[in-house]
Amino acid sequence: MILDIVILAAGQGTRMRSALPKVLHPVAGKPMLGHVIDCARALSPRHIHVVIGHGAEKVRETLGADDLNWVLQGEQLGTGHAVAQAIPHTKGADQILVLYGDVPLLRSSTLRRLSEQAGQNTLGLLTVTMDDPTGYGRIVRNPAGEVQSIVEQKDASAEHLLITEANTGIMALPGAHAADWLNSLSNDNAQGEYYLTDVVALAVGSKTGIEVAQPEDEVEVMGANNRQQLSVLERAIQSREALRLMTEGVTLADPGRLDVRGTVTVGRDIFLDINVVLEGQVTIEDNVEIGPNCVIRNSVVRRGTVIKAFSHLDGAEVGDECDIGPYARLRPGTVMERGAKVGNFVETKKTTIGTGSKINHLSYVGDALIGEQVNIGAGTITCNYDGVNKFVTEIGDRVFIGSNTALVAPVKVGAGATTGAGSTITQDVPAGALAVARTRQRAIENWQRPVKKAD
Amino acid sequence: MILDIVILAAGQGTRMRSALPKVLHPVAGKPMLGHVIDCARALSPRHIHVVIGHGAEKVRETLGADDLNWVLQGEQLGTGHAVAQAIPHTKGADQILVLYGDVPLLRSSTLRRLSEQAGQNTLGLLTVTMDDPTGYGRIVRNPAGEVQSIVEQKDASAEHLLITEANTGIMALPGAHAADWLNSLSNDNAQGEYYLTDVVALAVGSKTGIEVAQPEDEVEVMGANNRQQLSVLERAIQSREALRLMTEGVTLADPGRLDVRGTVTVGRDIFLDINVVLEGQVTIEDNVEIGPNCVIRNSVVRRGTVIKAFSHLDGAEVGDECDIGPYARLRPGTVMERGAKVGNFVETKKTTIGTGSKINHLSYVGDALIGEQVNIGAGTITCNYDGVNKFVTEIGDRVFIGSNTALVAPVKVGAGATTGAGSTITQDVPAGALAVARTRQRAIENWQRPVKKAD
Amino acid sequence: MILDIVILAAGQGTRMRSALPKVLHPVAGKPMLGHVIDCARALSPRHIHVVIGHGAEKVRETLGADDLNWVLQGEQLGTGHAVAQAIPHTKGADQILVLYGDVPLLRSSTLRRLSEQAGQNTLGLLTVTMDDPTGYGRIVRNPAGEVQSIVEQKDASAEHLLITEANTGIMALPGAHAADWLNSLSNDNAQGEYYLTDVVALAVGSKTGIEVAQPEDEVEVMGANNRQQLSVLERAIQSREALRLMTEGVTLADPGRLDVRGTVTVGRDIFLDINVVLEGQVTIEDNVEIGPNCVIRNSVVRRGTVIKAFSHLDGAEVGDECDIGPYARLRPGTVMERGAKVGNFVETKKTTIGTGSKINHLSYVGDALIGEQVNIGAGTITCNYDGVNKFVTEIGDRVFIGSNTALVAPVKVGAGATTGAGSTITQDVPAGALAVARTRQRAIENWQRPVKKAD
Repeated sequence: MILDIVILAAGQGTRMRSALPKVLHPVAGKPMLGHVIDCARALSPRHIHVVIGHGAEKVRETLGADDLNWVLQGEQLGTGHAVAQAIPHTKGADQILVLYGDVPLLRSSTLRRLSEQAGQNTLGLLTVTMDDPTGYGRIVRNPAGEVQSIVEQKDASAEHLLITEANTGIMALPGAHAADWLNSLSNDNAQGEYYLTDVVALAVGSKTGIEVAQPEDEVEVMGANNRQQLSVLERAIQSREALRLMTEGVTLADPGRLDVRGTVTVGRDIFLDINVVLEGQVTIEDNVEIGPNCVIRNSVVRRGTVIKAFSHLDGAEVGDECDIGPYARLRPGTVMERGAKVGNFVETKKTTIGTGSKINHLSYVGDALIGEQVNIGAGTITCNYDGVNKFVTEIGDRVFIGSNTALVAPVKVGAGATTGAGSTITQDVPAGALAVARTRQRAIENWQRPVKKAD
Repeated sequence: MILDIVILAAGQGTRMRSALPKVLHPVAGKPMLGHVIDCARALSPRHIHVVIGHGAEKVRETLGADDLNWVLQGEQLGTGHAVAQAIPHTKGADQILVLYGDVPLLRSSTLRRLSEQAGQNTLGLLTVTMDDPTGYGRIVRNPAGEVQSIVEQKDASAEHLLITEANTGIMALPGAHAADWLNSLSNDNAQGEYYLTDVVALAVGSKTGIEVAQPEDEVEVMGANNRQQLSVLERAIQSREALRLMTEGVTLADPGRLDVRGTVTVGRDIFLDINVVLEGQVTIEDNVEIGPNCVIRNSVVRRGTVIKAFSHLDGAEVGDECDIGPYARLRPGTVMERGAKVGNFVETKKTTIGTGSKINHLSYVGDALIGEQVNIGAGTITCNYDGVNKFVTEIGDRVFIGSNTALVAPVKVGAGATTGAGSTITQDVPAGALAVARTRQRAIENWQRPVKKAD
Repeated sequence: MILDIVILAAGQGTRMRSALPKVLHPVAGKPMLGHVIDCARALSPRHIHVVIGHGAEKVRETLGADDLNWVLQGEQLGTGHAVAQAIPHTKGADQILVLYGDVPLLRSSTLRRLSEQAGQNTLGLLTVTMDDPTGYGRIVRNPAGEVQSIVEQKDASAEHLLITEANTGIMALPGAHAADWLNSLSNDNAQGEYYLTDVVALAVGSKTGIEVAQPEDEVEVMGANNRQQLSVLERAIQSREALRLMTEGVTLADPGRLDVRGTVTVGRDIFLDINVVLEGQVTIEDNVEIGPNCVIRNSVVRRGTVIKAFSHLDGAEVGDECDIGPYARLRPGTVMERGAKVGNFVETKKTTIGTGSKINHLSYVGDALIGEQVNIGAGTITCNYDGVNKFVTEIGDRVFIGSNTALVAPVKVGAGATTGAGSTITQDVPAGALAVARTRQRAIENWQRPVKKAD
């Protein structure tokens, strides 16, 4: 069966009060339309057609990919009109699935079920049974259970209003009829729009069968027209992700206080404390503990590592059994080898920290190569920047860098060397040597403290 | 119509288990009574009378303002008695609205509706329809829909208990009757108290009409008698504020994790990540992003600025397109000009940071004037305090301050000057010069490391 | 009455997807089984028998205590079989209570009620009335209200399914019958297991009376078979703790964002802002304010102290009226005396900070004794570690340590002494003296800045 998918993404979204086109508003860190495109891709269709209008250029720029066929809808004249713009591009398709760029939580499994249920000869409708379907079109069935029509809220009789099965708008059009049906739509209604829903009447009229599928839950078919609805979708997708992680073997201190904005791969027996935020591509291996309020972005954290409260990792690769934080900030290019430690108020960047080495307190270490079993004292600063160029600091195995040391790069400290506290190291230090750059201490007895000046 | 408002604020609030008078317990950062006073002020009444008793002095001190008339209720003998204390001060009023100092979420629009509905000749009642009115007085109406009486829970028949319309206690007394009615109240009941509710019977008896208004939602009329109820009000007011911000064009990562304690003015296309706390007067302009867990107090943040996780701003003025955090702390008097940057583990205070200037890492900069395009190296400390006096550090345009530098104020570093890493700068640096205060580095070869001492 | 308690803790908990035995998974920072043992202990039984199987060694290791009798269940053949393993150890008991290691929220008051209700001659059942009892065994009573049987979900008739009183499995066995009943159990059922529930039929058959008790709420009898259920228990126990704190006089900015993992003792008029985490033994006295996102572990915080956002205390003893944070990290052995202050980006460890003394900014102070009214300048580092040994820094009263100072321990700074900014202090400083270790500043005029190197 040749499958095409049409995604409607032309709406303005005035109620978002935004300069950003509606379908680009993100949930879980990705534009709504991006989620819908990913859902579509999972079915491996022949083509994905995205109908754009408001902010068309911005949408293409943001989500442009080779497998997408962009269709411009110059005027927004209704969902039927929108799909019709894509129809010329669907020639030869056996089935055309219609999705919405602002309905981002649809599962690909649901979409596949709809597609299979409908096949190439019937009209497939995705419907949902709701506790409160107020505002939705109701699915009217005959005594045999066959769908007869969709009745909109405003046209509904008292009897219709009791129906809890509602239309979602997501459907599967049989390729053989799609073009004809869309051509037959009329805009003879109050809004003067062409409604895709009207194909149901055409299907019934032409004795084409109608098949129905339903989503696993209601949020799959919820759209966002304003930021409050967007926040409902955000929370729903986060709940879904929290549930997935718990099922895979992660303990969450509070599933309601986890935010995942990307793709997270987890092992077992991981503990994520409250308010952890995971962004981008994150891998967390077995027995890792992540403390409260940590932000982890595009990083790998290997087995048994502990990350304490308020730590911020971005682009870091952390080995087994490392000890991080609290208040550690690992910037891109940070590599921690087994058992390394980065402590409080420490910033690292483009730095490899060898096995068992420690940067425990108040330091900035950038553009550095640190060997094994090194101790970097509190208050150490790598002066890696001269205002225009960046230079590397190399520190050998078993080096002891005294506290409050400035390492003026490019500089090398040989294996087993020591630097005295309070030194500014501007020259290479030979292996095994002690380097000091310090002035003799003087004491001025009975020193007169400054006195408060008159204002 | 001459309007007076009486606010009852004399209760003790034993169940709060607190030394603070009940009405001073805050929601959204403001005493409950403060919210009620603000609500009253919105109707521009002739007088606002606040009836105080328990902790009267503390209440006056905390909320004292010229437009408030404080009325002392020496003994707490019931709501009717409390209002009666204020009545002598309401002479000439056409309408007297009665509010409660521990019911802080009442909207002024609701109060205005009640006032207008009642006018000057009828008794106005604010009632609320509740899913579960258990414990509340029920509004009994005759077949014509006219209010007949209020029946308390303990006196209610089975039929009465089915009534879901409840009394809130908030009412509009017609000025012409108020004094008479309050004088007629009796304390012939189990508690020996004078109940304001009894005026309903007096109104019915005297054929005075009764008009009813209702709030938009139930929380408007909820009071707090203990800290759990206080927390319910706190969450309700926060939900209300979150909804307002979303409506105005702010995306909230989680509306349930936002705390606003003050007055927040927002532009469009703002993103507030989880657990942001906004206090005092805060202005946030278009396209600002504020990361997780940031605290922003009494600050202005202009267009396009990005504030990263764990930042703490208080009394700061941040220009367009600035870059702040993570872990940046801006204290009062910090001014960041366009495109300036304050990075991790940096504290600033009474400091202006010029256009494009950067303080990226681990620094304390206080009482400083920093020009444009300046780079302040990691580990820089302004020594602005000699133990008794504070002094200013002035840094010219395009200066490069090396890492680990102490700047002993008062001191000036001229435009385009450079300071060497690890220097303590005690004298002014001429424009364009390099200033260094550093000792030559010595190396002691084959240095013997300390050995572990016996304990 | 001689009371024995049997706790079933042998299950594997496959759905946890964990290497940890199920009963060791923590809620509120303590293994589920630990909560159950504590509940049991509250009744002061003669013996507590814990039946273990999967991960038996690990369970004993983790929770081992002198008052526990460990009983190994080699094969898991059902709850009846599990209890039977413990029976030989219960000789002489008048009553045997059966609890479950994965049902951790049971209140001891509920258990006591069950025990007293049942006495030594009847079978006691803990039952619960649920909105939705699907999946639970239903309590079938005769018209006289006497329990007749427990019908499992799969065997339930339509009529049974309407019963909302469900079996919890928690019961009190009369000592006189327990051994006989357990011997009489049969495994002639689909699973081939011995079910403890079958004792109900035996009791009915033998005319032994059955008494019933109920918990205060449903969560008391909820178990956790997977991490999602574990998270439900975690949130329930946190709600319970939040309610307790509010009742005692603590204002919580958000009861849904508080985490208590240990034993917290509180005074009155305490304010805990959002996302506070309290671990271990924590005491908080009157009028303390703790800011957003703070983590407090095993610490005492005395009256009137304010702890600002993002602070992290572990093993600290904080006196009255202290001022801490934001971003302060107090490690074990930190003692702050009255009115002391630790500010942003400061780490302390094994350090006493005298009355009124201040460490306001960016410092690491470890192994130090600091007198009264001392000012420690920004960027101060105690160099307490030579790579193998730790040494003490002593600072007398009224000392002023200049900014960016390294104090190389062991070292003493006498009372009233001053150290110059940027100094590395390696020798003792006499009382009243000024110690400086600093090089004269040189200026190189018209210095040529580095230029961008070709890559």
